[in-house]
Amino acid sequence: MQETISVAALHKLVEAALSRNGFSAANASAIAAVIVAAERDGTRSHGLFRLAGYISEAGCGWVDGSAEPSLHDAAPGVLVVDAGNGYCQLAFERGRDRLVAKARANGSAAMAIRNSHHLAALWHEVEELAECGLVAFAFRNARPNMLPWGGQRKIFGTNPMAFACPVPGAPPLVWDFAASAMSRGEIMLAAQHGEALPEGVGVDAEGRATTDPKAILEGGAQLPFGGYKGSLLALTIEIMASAATGSLLSIEDRSAGVKGAQTANGGEMILAIDPAASGGESFGERMAMLVGALRGNGTARVPGERRYAARKAAEANGIPVDGATLDRVRAWARGEQP
Amino acid sequence: MQETISVAALHKLVEAALSRNGFSAANASAIAAVIVAAERDGTRSHGLFRLAGYISEAGCGWVDGSAEPSLHDAAPGVLVVDAGNGYCQLAFERGRDRLVAKARANGSAAMAIRNSHHLAALWHEVEELAECGLVAFAFRNARPNMLPWGGQRKIFGTNPMAFACPVPGAPPLVWDFAASAMSRGEIMLAAQHGEALPEGVGVDAEGRATTDPKAILEGGAQLPFGGYKGSLLALTIEIMASAATGSLLSIEDRSAGVKGAQTANGGEMILAIDPAASGGESFGERMAMLVGALRGNGTARVPGERRYAARKAAEANGIPVDGATLDRVRAWARGEQP
Repeated sequence: MQETISVAALHKLVEAALSRNGFSAANASAIAAVIVAAERDGTRSHGLFRLAGYISEAGCGWVDGSAEPSLHDAAPGVLVVDAGNGYCQLAFERGRDRLVAKARANGSAAMAIRNSHHLAALWHEVEELAECGLVAFAFRNARPNMLPWGGQRKIFGTNPMAFACPVPGAPPLVWDFAASAMSRGEIMLAAQHGEALPEGVGVDAEGRATTDPKAILEGGAQLPFGGYKGSLLALTIEIMASAATGSLLSIEDRSAGVKGAQTANGGEMILAIDPAASGGESFGERMAMLVGALRGNGTARVPGERRYAARKAAEANGIPVDGATLDRVRAWARGEQP
Repeated sequence: MQETISVAALHKLVEAALSRNGFSAANASAIAAVIVAAERDGTRSHGLFRLAGYISEAGCGWVDGSAEPSLHDAAPGVLVVDAGNGYCQLAFERGRDRLVAKARANGSAAMAIRNSHHLAALWHEVEELAECGLVAFAFRNARPNMLPWGGQRKIFGTNPMAFACPVPGAPPLVWDFAASAMSRGEIMLAAQHGEALPEGVGVDAEGRATTDPKAILEGGAQLPFGGYKGSLLALTIEIMASAATGSLLSIEDRSAGVKGAQTANGGEMILAIDPAASGGESFGERMAMLVGALRGNGTARVPGERRYAARKAAEANGIPVDGATLDRVRAWARGEQP
């Protein structure tokens, strides 16, 4: 049965569920904000669905739910944040204002988050930066589940990347995608339902092309989107997120040997550019022209607008959530193990 | 018949051909360096093949062959270069050292090249920055020949992007690709040879999928690589290259009405990050590990290595060039119109 819950009430509930299950108040609040934002915006694959993963990772000791990020000004335009083996949400929250200040003062700045975990989408972070008037990129590495183009050994995660840009008089243009042809969650769902996948999603344990989701998940490998170009992008995301932040590479990940672990200890790079410095006064006008050219252009869309529409509805009428799912969150919030 | 010519001799010859055909000494030298580098590295599609285009564009007055770029320090981490309606080569050359200095001092810097044209590949620029120890991105827009995913009106160029990263004890890892499924040059060649294209390269004037290269070139449109993800990348490249540099959007291009014109007056954004600041001491070690994981991994390659091998051979033995092509360059260098 479907229930409707307000954004504020869901935040309180998720925060309580995390607080009772190994997370400090600061981490619980930061993570709850992102989980609730995903439910609010209709991107459920990063919403309540992920809560069990957070609780499992803190519970088994793989991730530190009470981590305190430490900030280091490495250069006028570089902020390094050591997440202390915690999730990126709090690391980003703690570093955000300083990154924004650096980008405004220097015109260009980077935040390198190392020693960190990520179980959420990246749009949340770049959207916040674009709301401050900055153009922003985010790059994140992950568990080594993907082959490079033409390769036989898995060396990349499904490595997500995100981008956001301010639009005058409108919410930011925002996108977020994985460098893999299909997300791991979708492959898992297909395996559960016994459905075949399209060609090009992955290979089996012998490296042969397959449409069987189980063969990909059990010893097989995922493939990048877009052939060799997507593979080059996955490599670049890997470099930006790990080597360039001082974090572990996907191939250094040891989470497979830890029961309850779901994420790699890796890194995230965020770049922020002030378009007022680089683009000057015409920036807003050109963004309006470009967004206008996307609108009413076949089925092309302005990236982010579907989420904003869902958000508006959720803020007015509450978020519709499956009742059994909510009951499970309530049980966690009471300290029970559902 | 094939001739062999040294890198230095070919540079001198191309420089003379440009100097006799509307280019100042500074522009001729900067453009010749990039044309010769392409021939030397075996990426001929941006080599001597392009010379007629440069000469045509300067000859018809669409591009200023004597442009003097002007530099403006917009912020500690932002250099704006107005190319004065000239080619990017000289603009990049004039701005490069200041960009490198900014990136080293700030850890992160951007060079926004506006009011500029580009008829070359982007790898040359990012490779030079990586040789200075920086991680670099380049984004460039172009004539509006491409649809967004699901769209009906062309709003993007084939929008190229490039990336380079230093590797300890080895030349930089470098890639460069267009956001289109196929380059325009390859489609033109297929049209010349009457060959059909693979699916997904473009649509005809009515927006229907086609494998006929002529239908794509004559009123049709190109499509992005990798479906909606490639389209999001094309959009991002468009934003970075134009709105964020204060340059014309692809949809503002007016070159179609100018006989002899081949390029849009647009922009290029270059980002440079100092990995010593963001990644610390482990950066080089991790890059070596990652490059090691790409080697001997099926047919996966370290991007750039094919070019470096061709370069080594060309520097040792000279560049093999078609004799008729060389004769044409010699004629231009003598002031004749071949």
